[in-house]
Amino acid sequence: MSDGTDAEDDGATRDATGVRPPPERSLARDGQLALLLEVTGTPKPGNVDRAHDHDDLRFEHFVTGAVGALPGLRLAAGSDGERDGDDRANVGNAFERAVAGMSQQAGGNTQFGALLAVVPLVRAAADGDLSPAGVEAVATATTVEDAADFYRAFEHVDVAVEDPPDGMEPLDVRRGAAAVPALRERGLTLFDVMERSADRDGLAREWVGGFERSFHAADRLRDTEGPVPDRAARVFLELLADEPDTFVAVNHGEATAERVTAQAADALDGERDPWALADELVAEGVNPGTTADLVAAGLFVALRRGLEL
Amino acid sequence: MSDGTDAEDDGATRDATGVRPPPERSLARDGQLALLLEVTGTPKPGNVDRAHDHDDLRFEHFVTGAVGALPGLRLAAGSDGERDGDDRANVGNAFERAVAGMSQQAGGNTQFGALLAVVPLVRAAADGDLSPAGVEAVATATTVEDAADFYRAFEHVDVAVEDPPDGMEPLDVRRGAAAVPALRERGLTLFDVMERSADRDGLAREWVGGFERSFHAADRLRDTEGPVPDRAARVFLELLADEPDTFVAVNHGEATAERVTAQAADALDGERDPWALADELVAEGVNPGTTADLVAAGLFVALRRGLEL
Repeated sequence: MSDGTDAEDDGATRDATGVRPPPERSLARDGQLALLLEVTGTPKPGNVDRAHDHDDLRFEHFVTGAVGALPGLRLAAGSDGERDGDDRANVGNAFERAVAGMSQQAGGNTQFGALLAVVPLVRAAADGDLSPAGVEAVATATTVEDAADFYRAFEHVDVAVEDPPDGMEPLDVRRGAAAVPALRERGLTLFDVMERSADRDGLAREWVGGFERSFHAADRLRDTEGPVPDRAARVFLELLADEPDTFVAVNHGEATAERVTAQAADALDGERDPWALADELVAEGVNPGTTADLVAAGLFVALRRGLEL
Repeated sequence: MSDGTDAEDDGATRDATGVRPPPERSLARDGQLALLLEVTGTPKPGNVDRAHDHDDLRFEHFVTGAVGALPGLRLAAGSDGERDGDDRANVGNAFERAVAGMSQQAGGNTQFGALLAVVPLVRAAADGDLSPAGVEAVATATTVEDAADFYRAFEHVDVAVEDPPDGMEPLDVRRGAAAVPALRERGLTLFDVMERSADRDGLAREWVGGFERSFHAADRLRDTEGPVPDRAARVFLELLADEPDTFVAVNHGEATAERVTAQAADALDGERDPWALADELVAEGVNPGTTADLVAAGLFVALRRGLEL
């Protein structure tokens, strides 16, 4: 750190000619890069990507969301080489700040789900263990306060979710901060909240299952070839062909989600043109957003494991 | 700032329900957003953009470059609301760090010129005067040390430049850090260096002329309508139709630069399809990079002046 005046640098050591090595890629910026690369991959049928917009939700909203999310990602990373980093926050707190920053654009919810997956992974990496066990440790260590901040994050942006199961109405996430007293009363941690949604929500399932599909996506991103956005599009199709997207299920029903999964499998087998499928799904308003969130999570892990651009 | 443990947030005040307002858009992140929006605007004939790649220089390299540039942009901004910000650096130093971070991708030089324009504008904004006079004050206050770091920036990436004029060979920027002793001997500041290139280089001309075209671009970006990337593409054409691109002149000669300017004017008048022109110029390897840099600079200024996404 400098003394507050003009003459200091970022601490990198100069060689004899005064040249310094480039700054390291920080955890927070790799999280941001994962969000940006996710939306760059095309075609990711149904979703906004480099070649597709929805009417009121466009590519630039995702770009702006990724830029806005950075302060929250930094809170997840804590000390990550860019500064002294004495501003590490709880996971729920970091997530809420990331969502608040992401929400500062007119497109609405761009990366709520992606951040819900990436933030705990950033924290696991900051703790030195970016593995299923490491992120499971992050998830199970969450407290009621993390859950409270998770609920507060819903104040910043409208997120499509299912109705809560019987008896869980006071904890409907759409109530936002108003649900916090009920949360405290029941003593539910963020992990507990995720556990209660795991049967219906693909991201909650990641939270309670060591982020299995996110790590699988990371492996596939590293194993496939070609430009990273093309790999992201390929892995998106693979994930979608593998399991129905829960965001599609929430918005359009299980049958539609299963149909889209079959269509993705056809696209993967070459029996259907993925570009045509993208046009169809965009026209229909069907966007497999949870699958895209898993690709973002996979990109973050892959970047930390050496995926190069 | 927190006490280094887990429980603190970023200082935003909570309301009665514990909800905090979103983090403000920082200067450094607006600089980053400007770089990202510049490359998102399409068609910007000849350049990489949302719909165009070159063979080895692709959209994702620009995205990665913008993410990598952030630490340098933060050094330009100093205290900008995200942290205590005691890490303000000299303009040359901030620029060199931004270029070093930008260079960490396989595409090569993505945003050297854009950063050369955006970094002093970030500093002018940090000094509270984002105006032609404010950035002129930043430019004229530069020292020999700023010039030395500018030369060191060329160590990180290959930049296409013209041969130096007679007597200036020891100060050829392509010598990088090796030219620093000659720079010191002659006592040249970064402003002096820019002054000597202003007749041949559109960015040096901005540096010595109060960033006139950058501010003009900002006005146009705010005055036009529609999604911001569409505005960026429109303003790119306007700037290109107005003056030959000096980067094209360096790489392909004055005649080509003038021809491209005439083609841009035709595209603006509706006498030529800008998408077809983009395909032609990409095939020809002609990229009006300096004009794109001015659009990035204009985007930064426009964002600070209220351009919304």
